[in-house]
Amino acid sequence: MNNNFNLDEKAIEKKVKLTGWVAKIRKLGDLIFFDLRNSGKIVQIVITSDKEKIYQIAKKITKEDVILVEGIVKKRKSINQKLATGVIEIIASNLKIISKANQLPFIIADQTDGLEPLRMRYRYLDFRRENIYQIIKFRSDFNMIIRNYFNRLGFLEIETPTITKLTFGGASEFKVLSKNHPGYQYGLAQSPQIYKQLLMYGGIEKYYQIAKCYRDEDLRKDRQLEFTQLDLEKAFTTKKEIKKIIEKLLVKLFNNLLKLDLKIPFQTLKYKQAIDNFGTDKPDLRYQGKIYNFNFLKERLKFNLNQQESLIAVFSPKLLNQSKINDYLLKIKQKTDFYFINFKNKKILDTNLQDAIKVDFLKLLKNNQDLILKKDQFSILIIKNKALIAKEIAGKLRVLIAKENKLINKEQFSFVWIEDFPLFYLLKDLKIGSMHNPFTIFKQNQLKKFLKIDIKSKKELLKLNSEAYDIVLNGVEIGGGAMRIIDPKIQTKIFQILDLNQQQIENDFAFLLEAQTYGVPHHGGIALGIDRLIALMLKIDSIKEVIAFPKSSKGTDEMMGAPTKKGDISNE
Amino acid sequence: MNNNFNLDEKAIEKKVKLTGWVAKIRKLGDLIFFDLRNSGKIVQIVITSDKEKIYQIAKKITKEDVILVEGIVKKRKSINQKLATGVIEIIASNLKIISKANQLPFIIADQTDGLEPLRMRYRYLDFRRENIYQIIKFRSDFNMIIRNYFNRLGFLEIETPTITKLTFGGASEFKVLSKNHPGYQYGLAQSPQIYKQLLMYGGIEKYYQIAKCYRDEDLRKDRQLEFTQLDLEKAFTTKKEIKKIIEKLLVKLFNNLLKLDLKIPFQTLKYKQAIDNFGTDKPDLRYQGKIYNFNFLKERLKFNLNQQESLIAVFSPKLLNQSKINDYLLKIKQKTDFYFINFKNKKILDTNLQDAIKVDFLKLLKNNQDLILKKDQFSILIIKNKALIAKEIAGKLRVLIAKENKLINKEQFSFVWIEDFPLFYLLKDLKIGSMHNPFTIFKQNQLKKFLKIDIKSKKELLKLNSEAYDIVLNGVEIGGGAMRIIDPKIQTKIFQILDLNQQQIENDFAFLLEAQTYGVPHHGGIALGIDRLIALMLKIDSIKEVIAFPKSSKGTDEMMGAPTKKGDISNE
Repeated sequence: MNNNFNLDEKAIEKKVKLTGWVAKIRKLGDLIFFDLRNSGKIVQIVITSDKEKIYQIAKKITKEDVILVEGIVKKRKSINQKLATGVIEIIASNLKIISKANQLPFIIADQTDGLEPLRMRYRYLDFRRENIYQIIKFRSDFNMIIRNYFNRLGFLEIETPTITKLTFGGASEFKVLSKNHPGYQYGLAQSPQIYKQLLMYGGIEKYYQIAKCYRDEDLRKDRQLEFTQLDLEKAFTTKKEIKKIIEKLLVKLFNNLLKLDLKIPFQTLKYKQAIDNFGTDKPDLRYQGKIYNFNFLKERLKFNLNQQESLIAVFSPKLLNQSKINDYLLKIKQKTDFYFINFKNKKILDTNLQDAIKVDFLKLLKNNQDLILKKDQFSILIIKNKALIAKEIAGKLRVLIAKENKLINKEQFSFVWIEDFPLFYLLKDLKIGSMHNPFTIFKQNQLKKFLKIDIKSKKELLKLNSEAYDIVLNGVEIGGGAMRIIDPKIQTKIFQILDLNQQQIENDFAFLLEAQTYGVPHHGGIALGIDRLIALMLKIDSIKEVIAFPKSSKGTDEMMGAPTKKGDISNE
Repeated sequence: MNNNFNLDEKAIEKKVKLTGWVAKIRKLGDLIFFDLRNSGKIVQIVITSDKEKIYQIAKKITKEDVILVEGIVKKRKSINQKLATGVIEIIASNLKIISKANQLPFIIADQTDGLEPLRMRYRYLDFRRENIYQIIKFRSDFNMIIRNYFNRLGFLEIETPTITKLTFGGASEFKVLSKNHPGYQYGLAQSPQIYKQLLMYGGIEKYYQIAKCYRDEDLRKDRQLEFTQLDLEKAFTTKKEIKKIIEKLLVKLFNNLLKLDLKIPFQTLKYKQAIDNFGTDKPDLRYQGKIYNFNFLKERLKFNLNQQESLIAVFSPKLLNQSKINDYLLKIKQKTDFYFINFKNKKILDTNLQDAIKVDFLKLLKNNQDLILKKDQFSILIIKNKALIAKEIAGKLRVLIAKENKLINKEQFSFVWIEDFPLFYLLKDLKIGSMHNPFTIFKQNQLKKFLKIDIKSKKELLKLNSEAYDIVLNGVEIGGGAMRIIDPKIQTKIFQILDLNQQQIENDFAFLLEAQTYGVPHHGGIALGIDRLIALMLKIDSIKEVIAFPKSSKGTDEMMGAPTKKGDISNE
């Protein structure tokens, strides 16, 4: 069927047949105008009253009806510059209603009155909005660029199973029941991690996949039950090579899709640097301001700090007060002791510090001119808390203050690699946990240290660093990867450190440990969260908007009605 | 790292550094030769005894060790034509064992002693065999061709959810449990069917996806719990257009991957033709022989047939006898009455027909020369059974006889479209079932008939034909599609015919019926089974071989050990 909506001057005087949705209806004297829409494109249709039969049909047409129009392409009298087809219009010679549309639940236009839950319930109507259609198209183009890129580099696209074994406690895995195996259960794969390692063991040097992953996690804002990641792994590789592969991919994506030139290599921060300077391992570097360790004040300024406490400072260009700071803390959902000092013309204007300290503080700052912003007035907010908490709070306040004072350039895309992570961290139950995953290798120069280390020596274990790397865009982690363990002895020791007993290791990982005894290459890889990256590229807040059929924040499908109560379905 | 295995004459005298697996070891006097393998490529390494240190290392190396070699590329004295790198070899100057390989469970070579279950349990070792690597690569190339093709046609790749609502009885759906919704369950999507229809309703004219699908069906040979299909749908389309899109895609796939030119358009058979001539709607047309309705013999030859019985004949180039025919029936797991007549030089040589009938039969055949094979000798086997069963048995015997007599050209790829299917068929419980799916529309000229039809009038319902089409390759259905219902009144009546009560329709399909009230385009599409198509293209019997990590025929993962018994995992 001739349904070409790409009409321009060349089509003038041609006969066409178009089917689509009626996006807009205007009446002007004896004329009726329709904006006919299909796949994000619009063509203007004109119905003249001299064609009595079709004029009567046209009068019955309402918004979002699907209609068939035949007619002649004519040059428009007043050109619409906003439309690709704005030079022409169709004078209808035949008109048919294919499918009538009822009263719509929300306005089908870029500016809609439909709130998110309603739009998601009627997602198929949402797709008809030009801006939503463009997001769906963007995502399709995005995937194609990725595939062409890896295909050219000789990576093989390999599908790995999604129905798999429940692993490693399985606390975050959906459980799958099959009628063929009553009393047994599968898990939905959280990622292709183990499979891609096995591909490497199998001599497949370069693997990638745009993979569905599943996590049955506590419901948090903007998480999805199923999400999509670009997953890749390479044998005989280095951290440096993987980073380069990803940087060049991002250059290509941003260039092709956004016409932006990213500068590579991206900045790299060590984990410790990131925490010390920004209070987070996901720093938003669109704002240059840092947080500062003010512990040098401890003794000299007689602060009452206990051993574990630190003083971490963050600067505000606007003057602060008790109530404003409490507002800030409420917004980031934190409670802490703090001090603030407002400066005007290099003098203290206002503070909640004791007078005695105040004088000393001013003296001190005079000797540390670099700490003072080159502004007439500014404020220093000092968080007093345990070191890690103080940094975290200061880091969050840094971003909040930057946003409130419009110090973040929203046009900017600021990438940073974070590396030299700790290999382990302390869980809430004081057990040792993997910072990334249990397959990540420590830094090469720590091999001897690792081999000697006692698996119970938490202090020593927490000092180890991993060969892992995260990539952060505008303060959001968009991906993470690592070099992997290939030695079954090291792998076993890691499992023991993570407090897996012999039975658990045997049950869950015997096959992996055996696999590592048949000749295994060095390898490493990375996974990028595609939903999140697309949302960031398009400056969209919620990943729901970039997923064709997302679940609600509660993990429910409000359109179809899922999940369903057990026993509600006929076969149970 | 320099790990280039694409070495030819141009590399001679260059220094290289290669890492890979030791595929073969040969000792020749003071020399040790390794075939070093990586990603399906082989390079010959030579260790000379004058380099004492590395010679000692080389002596310790066993098959499938991962090693690092540095050396100079030299021209070989005797060129190996079978290898891409057969002109050169590397004289090692440095050698390092990266990872030792234990005794292997099976031989890593195209010809292996490993049977399927063992190979699948150690699938990562299986990947190291050149022929398996090539299958994995083939599949990656296959997907890339599909994506480029649809991208060029303007189809958008759209991911649809796999965690969805349990639908339509849900008898073949895996059930998914989430810790966030105790007492509730999701289903794993059997296909993107409903979602792609919603995309069409949403004005996305062209959709495709290479989609994971899930079916919790009774375990049958060569079925997988999860499988992959090419899924597509187009608005404002026709059966003709969809068939053309698929034919052109297949031309491209066969041309690029197998260097074969397919002739299009493919042959089309109506469902009735297929059943009458081949006893199946999945005819293998690499063999031209048909089955024949011999009911004309009924009266004239005084066969004792009851009303429902038919006589369906199949020809054999080899003479048959009672025991051979019983063998055949055993192989196809059927029991039936039958007659056979062996002919030699146009005379009856042998038969289990009564003498009286024999004479008549010969006369009859003389008047129907077209029924007689132009061979000196042949046999006619006549199945006596209920019409449909007789056809089915004859159809199966047709293929079996063709295979046994090597009448099938195994090099051939024989495509055929089957269309004009019945819309409904009779289920075992005598309820009405959809031949394809409940969203398939009947043929356009049957609209009036359908609107009048009583939902209980099975006889009339079974006469309706659908606008569905299957594509069959070498006797295997590789895909099926249809034009869809867009009218909620028709859709509701179909659900009622399928014996869904008001409550079930409301529960499972209210959203779909509502969606059809907001202006819906005509649309249709198709889904191709990718695993099966790749297996057929590569002439591989089992789809397991073309899936990276397949499940066993019992639906288990023998490598990792899944599913696991409920209660076996720590969090339960």
